[in-house]
Amino acid sequence: MMPGGRLTTSPFFFFFFYLLNAVYCQDLSGPVFIQEPPNNVDFSNSTGTEIICQARGSPFPSISWTKSDGTPIGTIPGLRQVLENGNLILPPFRATDYKQEVHAQTYRCQSENELGKIISRDVHVRAVVSQDYELDVFKTNILLNNDALVGCVVPSHVGDMLEVQGWVDSEGVELGAGLGRTQFDGKYVVLPSGELQIRNVTAEDGFKTYKCRTKHRLTGETKLSATAGRLVITEPVGGSAPKFPSETDLSRLTHKEGNPLRLTCPAQASPLPSFRWYKFQEGTTIKKPVKLDDRVKQVGGTLIILEAQVEDSGKYLCMVNNSVGGESVETVLTVTAPLSAEVEPKQQVVDYGRSATFKCNYKGNPIKQVYWLKDGVNIGHSDKVLRIDSVKKEDKGMYQLV
Amino acid sequence: MMPGGRLTTSPFFFFFFYLLNAVYCQDLSGPVFIQEPPNNVDFSNSTGTEIICQARGSPFPSISWTKSDGTPIGTIPGLRQVLENGNLILPPFRATDYKQEVHAQTYRCQSENELGKIISRDVHVRAVVSQDYELDVFKTNILLNNDALVGCVVPSHVGDMLEVQGWVDSEGVELGAGLGRTQFDGKYVVLPSGELQIRNVTAEDGFKTYKCRTKHRLTGETKLSATAGRLVITEPVGGSAPKFPSETDLSRLTHKEGNPLRLTCPAQASPLPSFRWYKFQEGTTIKKPVKLDDRVKQVGGTLIILEAQVEDSGKYLCMVNNSVGGESVETVLTVTAPLSAEVEPKQQVVDYGRSATFKCNYKGNPIKQVYWLKDGVNIGHSDKVLRIDSVKKEDKGMYQLV
Repeated sequence: MMPGGRLTTSPFFFFFFYLLNAVYCQDLSGPVFIQEPPNNVDFSNSTGTEIICQARGSPFPSISWTKSDGTPIGTIPGLRQVLENGNLILPPFRATDYKQEVHAQTYRCQSENELGKIISRDVHVRAVVSQDYELDVFKTNILLNNDALVGCVVPSHVGDMLEVQGWVDSEGVELGAGLGRTQFDGKYVVLPSGELQIRNVTAEDGFKTYKCRTKHRLTGETKLSATAGRLVITEPVGGSAPKFPSETDLSRLTHKEGNPLRLTCPAQASPLPSFRWYKFQEGTTIKKPVKLDDRVKQVGGTLIILEAQVEDSGKYLCMVNNSVGGESVETVLTVTAPLSAEVEPKQQVVDYGRSATFKCNYKGNPIKQVYWLKDGVNIGHSDKVLRIDSVKKEDKGMYQLV
Repeated sequence: MMPGGRLTTSPFFFFFFYLLNAVYCQDLSGPVFIQEPPNNVDFSNSTGTEIICQARGSPFPSISWTKSDGTPIGTIPGLRQVLENGNLILPPFRATDYKQEVHAQTYRCQSENELGKIISRDVHVRAVVSQDYELDVFKTNILLNNDALVGCVVPSHVGDMLEVQGWVDSEGVELGAGLGRTQFDGKYVVLPSGELQIRNVTAEDGFKTYKCRTKHRLTGETKLSATAGRLVITEPVGGSAPKFPSETDLSRLTHKEGNPLRLTCPAQASPLPSFRWYKFQEGTTIKKPVKLDDRVKQVGGTLIILEAQVEDSGKYLCMVNNSVGGESVETVLTVTAPLSAEVEPKQQVVDYGRSATFKCNYKGNPIKQVYWLKDGVNIGHSDKVLRIDSVKKEDKGMYQLV
C-alpha cells in the first residue's frame, strides 16, 4: 500500500572500485559480489529457502550475515543456518515453530578482506505459513447492457500470494482464457488484475454463475472459489446518469514496469455512456486524450496497458457521460522500475594530495535517495557525484553507492 | 463522484439591488425572489413534486420557467405544469411515462417587470423511478482480534437514495443503535457511512450473522438486507505486517459541513497494529497528529468527525505499524459548505457620470467562480468587486451576483 515504503530501506545497489589500492599492490583486490542476495525473499514454511551470497577478491573475502542494523546473526538449530560458503539457509518449519525474529526479518550479507568491506542491499525475508483460505465471488449488481466487473475476493492475509488464473462459468466453460489474455474483443475479458469483465450484459447472463481460480505464487497450489458469483441485472427505467459503485473518485496504483495493468472506470448508466480516458501533463491541469495503440487498449470503461513503462506514470482521468449527466474518476499511476546504479570510473589510481571524482549513474523509478558507503559505512554524502579533494592515505578503501 | 461537478453549474445565489432606479421613481421596484427554488430537487415517481418560485416587486413581476440554456418551457399534460402563481409541478407518473427531457432536466425560474429581470440558480430536477432492489451483506475475512468493517452493499442505481439505519444480528439484536451513534466505546459501532465496525473480533463472533437495514430518502421505505454477512476469522500464524484489503492507498471523499463522517483505515495485522492519524499542512509534506476531542474520535483504525467543518478539509494519513512492518493510506477530504453571497450595498443612487461600486461578500466551499448578471445576462465580470466607472442611463437595472 505504501509503494515507496519498502524501497526506501532496500535498494542497495553495489558497484565498487579501488581507491589508492594500486599504489600499494597490483595483485590485491577488494571484495566484489559475484551474486548478491535479492531485495525480497518470500518463501513457504513447507519449502524453506536458501539465500545465496557470493563474493570474490584477493585475498579471498569472508562472508557473514547481519540484521539490517548491523547486529551479527548466527545459526539457530532447525530454524536458521549460515553455511561455510556464505549462503543463508532457512529450512522448512512447522507453523508452531514460526519465529518473527527469524522468519520476518531484514538481513544483510557482508563481505570483507584486508582491502575493505562491502555490504549487500537489505534482504527482506518473509516466511509465509500455509493457512487455509477461501476465495469468494459475490453477486454483482449491474444495469442491463452495461459491462459488469466481477472480482475474485481473497482474504488479505493471503492476498499478495495469490494470482487469478482464470474464470469458469456454471456450465464449466473457461471464460476469456485461451486467448492468452491479449485479445480484448470477446464477451469475457480477464483483466490483468484478475477481474472478469463481462461485456454488454444481457438478461441471459443472469442465469449463469461465475467462479474464479487462483494460483499460489509460492506453493503453486491452485484453488477454485468456494462461492460462485452471479449478475443481478436491473432493467433501467428512465435515464440515469453515470454512477460509480465507490464513494471515492481518486485512487493510486503502483505497478511494475513491463507487466500488464488496468485502470478501471466502473460507472453504470442508462442510456449507455461514453468512456473517455485522459492523462494530465505532469504538474498541470492540462489533460490530453490517452492514445490507444497496440500496447494501450480500451475495453469498455477499462484502460489496459499491456507492457507498462515508467513514462506511463502520471494522473489519469476517466470521464463518463451520457445524455443525463456525467461523472469522472482520477487514478494516479506509478510504474516502478528496478533500481540499478553504477559508479564511474570503477577503479581510480590517484596521486597523494590530488583529487578523485566518482560519478553515480542510476536509473529506476521512484528514486528516493542516493547514499555513498566507504567500507560499509555511510559517509553522509548524497550527491550524484562524490569528489575527494585532497586524497589521503585514509581514503583508501571500497566505495559503494547505495 | 466528481464533487465539484454539480456545483460548477448550479450555485446561483442571488442578491440584488437597484441601480439608478431611485432617480426615476421611488415607488417602483425590480423583482426580488421571496422564495427561490432549491439547487437540487429529487423526487419519487410515486409522489411527484412541486417546485416553488415566488418573487415580489412593483409592478408585480411575472414568473416563467426555462431550461438552463434559456429555452422557455411550458405545460405538458400529465407530466409538467407551470402554475399561474409561478410554481412548477411535476405530478406522479408511471415508470413507462418517464421522459428524460422532463424528469432529468435542469430548470431555471425567471422573474421580470419593467425595471429588470432576475434569474434563479440552476434547479437540477431528478425523478427517481421506484425499482426493485436487494441489499447484501457479504462475508468478511478478518484476522482474530482485529476490528472487522462490515459493509451494506447497495446497487448503484439506488445507492444515493438509501441510508443505512442500523444493523441486526442473527439473534435479532439491534447492534450499535440506541446509542444515538454518538457513543463509540461498545463492541459494535455503526459508522456515519453505514458500515458496522465490530471491535476486537473473537472466535464467537464467527457464529453470528449480520444484516443491515436501510431507509429510502424519498419514499421512506425501510428494507432489511436479503443476505446476511458473517465473519470468516483466521487465527494468525506467525506475524503479518499490516495489510489493506484494497490495492489503492489514496482516496478522496466529499462530505457536507455539519454532518458526521468517517475516514477508514481497514488494515489487518498480527500482532495487533497501532493506528495513527495525521493531517498534512496544506500544500506541504509536513504532517501533524490529528487532535482527538469531543468532536473528533478514533475508534480502532477509524477516524470519526462528528460535525464536519470546512477547516477539516485536507489530506489525511493513517499510519499502521506493528513489529513486523508498516503501511499507510492517504485520504483527501473536502468538506463542502453551502454557498451564499451578498451584494453590498443593496441599493445605490448614483449621479449621472459618477461611479458606482458593488462588493460581493461570499462564503462556502469550494468556490469555483464568481459571475455578475445584469438583468439576467452575464456581463463577463468575475471579480469580487464590480465598479461602474461613469454611470450612464443604460446601466440602470437589476445586478445579480452568481
